Amino acid sequence: MYLRFKLNYFCLKNFMKERIDCTWKNDMAFEADVEGFKIMMDTAHAPEGQRMGPRPKPLTLVSLAGCTGMDVISILKKMKIEPEYFNIGVEGDVTEEHPKYYQKIHVIYELRGKDVDPEKVEKAVNLSRERYCGVYALLKHGAEITYEIRILE
Amino acid sequence: MYLRFKLNYFCLKNFMKERIDCTWKNDMAFEADVEGFKIMMDTAHAPEGQRMGPRPKPLTLVSLAGCTGMDVISILKKMKIEPEYFNIGVEGDVTEEHPKYYQKIHVIYELRGKDVDPEKVEKAVNLSRERYCGVYALLKHGAEITYEIRILE
Repeated sequence: MYLRFKLNYFCLKNFMKERIDCTWKNDMAFEADVEGFKIMMDTAHAPEGQRMGPRPKPLTLVSLAGCTGMDVISILKKMKIEPEYFNIGVEGDVTEEHPKYYQKIHVIYELRGKDVDPEKVEKAVNLSRERYCGVYALLKHGAEITYEIRILE
Repeated sequence: MYLRFKLNYFCLKNFMKERIDCTWKNDMAFEADVEGFKIMMDTAHAPEGQRMGPRPKPLTLVSLAGCTGMDVISILKKMKIEPEYFNIGVEGDVTEEHPKYYQKIHVIYELRGKDVDPEKVEKAVNLSRERYCGVYALLKHGAEITYEIRILE
Protein backbone atom coordinates (compact mmCIF):
# COMPACT_ATOMS: atom_id res chain seq x y z
CA MET A 1 0.00 0.00 0.00
CA TYR A 2 2.77 2.38 0.93
CA LEU A 3 4.60 1.54 -2.28
CA ARG A 4 1.42 2.11 -4.29
CA PHE A 5 0.87 5.48 -2.70
CA LYS A 6 4.45 6.42 -3.43
CA LEU A 7 4.12 5.34 -7.05
CA ASN A 8 0.89 7.27 -7.60
CA TYR A 9 2.41 10.34 -6.07
CA PHE A 10 5.42 9.92 -8.32
CA CYS A 11 3.15 9.66 -11.38
CA LEU A 12 1.12 12.70 -10.38
CA LYS A 13 4.20 14.76 -9.65
CA ASN A 14 5.92 13.98 -12.93
CA PHE A 15 3.64 15.55 -15.49
CA MET A 16 1.10 18.31 -16.05
CA LYS A 17 -1.88 17.81 -18.35
CA GLU A 18 -2.64 20.22 -21.21
CA ARG A 19 -5.55 20.10 -23.66
CA ILE A 20 -6.52 21.65 -26.96
CA ASP A 21 -9.76 21.23 -28.93
CA CYS A 22 -10.31 21.25 -32.65
CA THR A 23 -13.83 21.44 -34.09
CA TRP A 24 -14.94 20.66 -37.64
CA LYS A 25 -16.56 23.70 -39.28
CA ASN A 26 -17.30 22.67 -42.90
CA ASP A 27 -15.64 20.88 -45.83
CA MET A 28 -12.04 20.44 -44.60
CA ALA A 29 -12.01 23.52 -42.33
CA PHE A 30 -11.34 23.00 -38.61
CA GLU A 31 -11.09 25.57 -35.83
CA ALA A 32 -8.73 24.90 -32.95
CA ASP A 33 -9.09 26.40 -29.49
CA VAL A 34 -5.78 26.75 -27.66
CA GLU A 35 -6.30 28.31 -24.23
CA GLY A 36 -8.98 30.60 -25.69
CA PHE A 37 -7.03 31.52 -28.86
CA LYS A 38 -8.66 30.35 -32.11
CA ILE A 39 -6.72 28.95 -35.07
CA MET A 40 -8.44 28.00 -38.32
CA MET A 41 -6.97 25.22 -40.48
CA ASP A 42 -7.90 24.10 -43.98
CA THR A 43 -6.54 22.03 -46.88
CA ALA A 44 -4.38 23.42 -49.66
CA HIS A 45 -7.12 22.13 -52.01
CA ALA A 46 -9.76 24.58 -50.73
CA PRO A 47 -11.17 26.76 -53.55
CA GLU A 48 -9.29 29.97 -54.39
CA GLY A 49 -10.13 32.73 -51.91
CA GLN A 50 -12.06 30.36 -49.65
CA ARG A 51 -9.13 28.82 -47.84
CA MET A 52 -9.83 29.40 -44.16
CA GLY A 53 -6.34 28.85 -42.72
CA PRO A 54 -3.01 27.04 -43.00
CA ARG A 55 -2.69 23.28 -43.41
CA PRO A 56 -2.26 21.46 -40.09
CA LYS A 57 1.07 19.75 -40.80
CA PRO A 58 3.31 22.87 -40.94
CA LEU A 59 1.96 23.87 -37.52
CA THR A 60 4.37 21.25 -36.13
CA LEU A 61 7.19 23.39 -37.55
CA VAL A 62 5.58 26.58 -36.15
CA SER A 63 5.43 24.91 -32.73
CA LEU A 64 9.15 24.07 -32.94
CA ALA A 65 10.11 27.56 -34.19
CA GLY A 66 8.16 29.35 -31.45
CA CYS A 67 9.45 27.06 -28.70
CA THR A 68 13.14 27.30 -29.59
CA GLY A 69 12.78 31.00 -30.51
CA MET A 70 11.45 31.85 -27.03
CA ASP A 71 14.28 29.88 -25.42
CA VAL A 72 16.92 31.67 -27.48
CA ILE A 73 15.55 35.19 -26.99
CA SER A 74 15.23 34.69 -23.23
CA ILE A 75 18.78 33.29 -22.93
CA LEU A 76 20.14 36.16 -25.06
CA LYS A 77 18.32 38.62 -22.79
CA LYS A 78 20.13 37.15 -19.76
CA MET A 79 23.38 37.63 -21.73
CA LYS A 80 22.38 41.33 -22.21
CA ILE A 81 22.00 40.80 -25.96
CA GLU A 82 18.96 42.26 -27.72
CA PRO A 83 18.94 41.63 -31.48
CA GLU A 84 17.36 44.15 -33.85
CA TYR A 85 15.99 41.27 -35.91
CA PHE A 86 15.48 37.60 -35.09
CA ASN A 87 13.78 35.13 -37.40
CA ILE A 88 13.53 31.36 -37.24
CA GLY A 89 12.99 29.65 -40.59
CA VAL A 90 12.07 25.98 -40.39
CA GLU A 91 12.23 23.71 -43.43
CA GLY A 92 10.74 20.25 -43.44
CA ASP A 93 11.34 17.49 -46.00
CA VAL A 94 8.04 15.65 -46.40
CA THR A 95 8.00 12.05 -47.64
CA GLU A 96 6.07 11.54 -50.86
CA GLU A 97 4.48 8.28 -49.75
CA HIS A 98 1.77 7.95 -47.08
CA PRO A 99 1.99 8.72 -44.25
CA LYS A 100 3.52 12.01 -45.47
CA TYR A 101 5.66 13.18 -42.57
CA TYR A 102 8.71 15.37 -41.97
CA GLN A 103 11.66 13.00 -42.13
CA LYS A 104 14.18 15.86 -41.94
CA ILE A 105 13.79 19.27 -40.30
CA HIS A 106 16.26 22.13 -40.70
CA VAL A 107 16.12 25.16 -38.39
CA ILE A 108 17.69 28.44 -39.55
CA TYR A 109 18.29 31.05 -36.84
CA GLU A 110 18.78 34.48 -38.46
CA LEU A 111 19.85 37.43 -36.30
CA ARG A 112 20.97 41.00 -36.85
CA GLY A 113 22.12 43.60 -34.33
CA LYS A 114 25.26 45.35 -33.14
CA ASP A 115 25.47 43.34 -29.89
CA VAL A 116 24.93 39.97 -31.57
CA ASP A 117 27.95 37.80 -30.69
CA PRO A 118 28.02 34.58 -32.82
CA GLU A 119 29.53 32.47 -30.03
CA LYS A 120 26.87 33.53 -27.53
CA VAL A 121 24.11 32.86 -30.06
CA GLU A 122 25.57 29.39 -30.67
CA LYS A 123 25.55 28.78 -26.91
CA ALA A 124 21.91 29.94 -26.60
CA VAL A 125 20.83 27.75 -29.53
CA ASN A 126 22.56 24.71 -28.06
CA LEU A 127 21.00 25.27 -24.63
CA SER A 128 17.60 25.31 -26.35
CA ARG A 129 18.30 22.19 -28.44
CA GLU A 130 19.88 20.17 -25.67
CA ARG A 131 18.14 21.31 -22.49
CA TYR A 132 15.05 23.52 -22.81
CA CYS A 133 13.06 23.05 -26.02
CA GLY A 134 10.30 20.53 -25.35
CA VAL A 135 9.16 20.45 -28.97
CA TYR A 136 12.69 19.64 -30.13
CA ALA A 137 12.86 16.90 -27.46
CA LEU A 138 9.67 15.33 -28.83
CA LEU A 139 10.33 15.65 -32.58
CA LYS A 140 13.97 14.52 -32.57
CA HIS A 141 12.87 10.90 -32.10
CA GLY A 142 10.96 10.89 -35.39
CA ALA A 143 12.95 13.32 -37.58
CA GLU A 144 16.59 14.22 -38.12
CA ILE A 145 16.82 17.86 -36.97
CA THR A 146 19.71 20.04 -38.14
CA TYR A 147 20.31 23.77 -37.69
CA GLU A 148 22.37 26.73 -38.81
CA ILE A 149 22.93 30.24 -37.47
CA ARG A 150 23.10 33.20 -39.85
CA ILE A 151 24.35 36.51 -38.48
CA LEU A 152 23.09 39.17 -40.90
CA GLU A 153 24.89 42.47 -41.60
CA MET B 1 28.21 7.28 -62.33
CA TYR B 2 24.98 5.66 -63.38
CA LEU B 3 24.39 4.44 -59.83
CA ARG B 4 25.09 7.92 -58.46
CA PHE B 5 22.63 9.50 -60.86
CA LYS B 6 20.02 6.94 -59.89
CA LEU B 7 20.61 7.59 -56.18
CA ASN B 8 20.31 11.37 -56.54
CA TYR B 9 17.14 10.98 -58.51
CA PHE B 10 15.80 8.69 -55.82
CA CYS B 11 16.60 11.26 -53.14
CA LEU B 12 15.02 14.09 -55.08
CA LYS B 13 11.90 12.07 -55.81
CA ASN B 14 11.35 11.00 -52.23
CA PHE B 15 10.51 14.24 -50.47
CA MET B 16 9.02 17.69 -50.94
CA LYS B 17 10.36 20.70 -49.06
CA GLU B 18 8.08 22.95 -46.98
CA ARG B 19 9.04 26.06 -45.01
CA ILE B 20 7.57 28.29 -42.33
CA ASP B 21 9.01 31.48 -40.83
CA CYS B 22 8.66 32.84 -37.33
CA THR B 23 9.74 36.38 -36.51
CA TRP B 24 10.39 37.90 -33.09
CA LYS B 25 8.08 40.88 -32.44
CA ASN B 26 8.79 41.97 -28.82
CA ASP B 27 9.26 40.47 -25.34
CA MET B 28 8.33 36.80 -25.90
CA ALA B 29 5.89 37.40 -28.78
CA PHE B 30 6.64 35.76 -32.14
CA GLU B 31 4.62 35.88 -35.37
CA ALA B 32 4.69 32.86 -37.64
CA ASP B 33 3.99 32.97 -41.37
CA VAL B 34 2.57 29.72 -42.71
CA GLU B 35 1.90 29.99 -46.44
CA GLY B 36 0.73 33.59 -45.94
CA PHE B 37 -1.37 32.92 -42.83
CA LYS B 38 -0.13 34.67 -39.67
CA ILE B 39 -0.12 33.07 -36.22
CA MET B 40 0.97 34.98 -33.11
CA MET B 41 2.54 33.11 -30.19
CA ASP B 42 3.43 34.30 -26.70
CA THR B 43 4.29 32.97 -23.26
CA ALA B 44 1.72 32.20 -20.58
CA HIS B 45 3.68 34.69 -18.42
CA ALA B 46 2.77 37.69 -20.60
CA PRO B 47 1.01 40.43 -18.57
CA GLU B 48 -2.78 40.16 -18.20
CA GLY B 49 -4.55 41.37 -21.35
CA GLN B 50 -1.28 41.69 -23.27
CA ARG B 51 -0.86 38.06 -24.25
CA MET B 52 -0.57 38.08 -28.04
CA GLY B 53 -1.32 34.43 -28.77
CA PRO B 54 -1.11 30.82 -27.60
CA ARG B 55 2.07 29.21 -26.30
CA PRO B 56 4.03 27.38 -29.03
CA LYS B 57 4.07 23.91 -27.46
CA PRO B 58 0.31 23.10 -27.69
CA LEU B 59 0.49 23.91 -31.43
CA THR B 60 2.05 20.46 -31.81
CA LEU B 61 -1.26 19.05 -30.50
CA VAL B 62 -3.24 21.38 -32.82
CA SER B 63 -1.19 20.10 -35.76
CA LEU B 64 -2.00 16.50 -34.81
CA ALA B 65 -5.72 17.24 -34.26
CA GLY B 66 -6.11 19.03 -37.60
CA CYS B 67 -4.18 16.40 -39.54
CA THR B 68 -6.07 13.38 -38.17
CA GLY B 69 -9.37 15.32 -38.20
CA MET B 70 -9.07 16.03 -41.93
CA ASP B 71 -8.23 12.37 -42.61
CA VAL B 72 -11.24 11.15 -40.65
CA ILE B 73 -13.76 13.61 -42.13
CA SER B 74 -12.62 12.85 -45.70
CA ILE B 75 -12.79 9.07 -45.13
CA LEU B 76 -16.26 9.42 -43.54
CA LYS B 77 -17.37 11.47 -46.55
CA LYS B 78 -16.35 8.61 -48.86
CA MET B 79 -18.42 6.31 -46.59
CA LYS B 80 -21.39 8.72 -47.11
CA ILE B 81 -21.32 9.71 -43.44
CA GLU B 82 -21.64 13.38 -42.52
CA PRO B 83 -21.62 14.02 -38.78
CA GLU B 84 -23.57 16.93 -37.31
CA TYR B 85 -20.73 17.54 -34.87
CA PHE B 86 -17.11 16.43 -34.90
CA ASN B 87 -14.52 17.53 -32.35
CA ILE B 88 -11.01 16.29 -31.70
CA GLY B 89 -9.75 16.89 -28.17
CA VAL B 90 -6.04 16.28 -27.64
CA GLU B 91 -4.53 15.96 -24.19
CA GLY B 92 -0.80 16.00 -23.60
CA ASP B 93 1.06 15.02 -20.43
CA VAL B 94 4.02 17.36 -20.11
CA THR B 95 7.07 16.32 -18.10
CA GLU B 96 7.86 18.61 -15.19
CA GLU B 97 11.63 18.55 -15.74
CA HIS B 98 13.44 20.24 -18.64
CA PRO B 99 13.08 19.70 -21.50
CA LYS B 100 9.31 19.84 -20.85
CA TYR B 101 7.79 17.69 -23.59
CA TYR B 102 4.64 15.65 -24.22
CA GLN B 103 5.54 12.15 -23.08
CA LYS B 104 1.94 10.92 -23.53
CA ILE B 105 -0.71 12.19 -25.94
CA HIS B 106 -4.37 11.14 -25.86
CA VAL B 107 -6.69 11.88 -28.79
CA ILE B 108 -10.46 11.98 -28.19
CA TYR B 109 -12.64 11.80 -31.31
CA GLU B 110 -16.16 13.04 -30.45
CA LEU B 111 -18.93 12.71 -33.04
CA ARG B 112 -22.68 13.19 -33.16
CA GLY B 113 -25.12 12.55 -36.00
CA LYS B 114 -27.82 10.12 -37.10
CA ASP B 115 -25.63 8.44 -39.74
CA VAL B 116 -22.63 8.02 -37.44
CA ASP B 117 -21.80 4.30 -37.34
CA PRO B 118 -19.26 3.52 -34.56
CA GLU B 119 -17.57 0.73 -36.54
CA LYS B 120 -17.05 2.94 -39.57
CA VAL B 121 -15.69 5.74 -37.39
CA GLU B 122 -13.28 3.26 -35.80
CA LYS B 123 -12.16 2.19 -39.29
CA ALA B 124 -11.64 5.82 -40.39
CA VAL B 125 -9.67 6.63 -37.21
CA ASN B 126 -7.44 3.59 -37.68
CA LEU B 127 -6.78 4.44 -41.34
CA SER B 128 -5.65 7.89 -40.20
CA ARG B 129 -3.46 6.56 -37.38
CA GLU B 130 -1.89 3.74 -39.34
CA ARG B 131 -1.71 5.02 -42.91
CA TYR B 132 -2.46 8.70 -43.56
CA CYS B 133 -1.69 11.04 -40.67
CA GLY B 134 1.82 12.41 -41.15
CA VAL B 135 1.82 14.23 -37.81
CA TYR B 136 0.91 11.02 -35.98
CA ALA B 137 3.69 9.22 -37.92
CA LEU B 138 6.23 11.79 -36.71
CA LEU B 139 5.11 12.17 -33.07
CA LYS B 140 4.62 8.47 -32.29
CA HIS B 141 8.40 7.99 -32.08
CA GLY B 142 8.70 10.46 -29.20
CA ALA B 143 5.38 10.07 -27.35
CA GLU B 144 2.98 7.27 -26.48
CA ILE B 145 -0.21 8.17 -28.39
CA THR B 146 -3.54 6.66 -27.33
CA TYR B 147 -7.07 7.43 -28.53
CA GLU B 148 -10.75 6.95 -27.83
CA ILE B 149 -13.93 7.48 -29.82
CA ARG B 150 -17.01 8.99 -28.18
CA ILE B 151 -20.29 8.81 -30.08
CA LEU B 152 -22.53 11.48 -28.55
CA GLU B 153 -26.33 11.29 -28.33
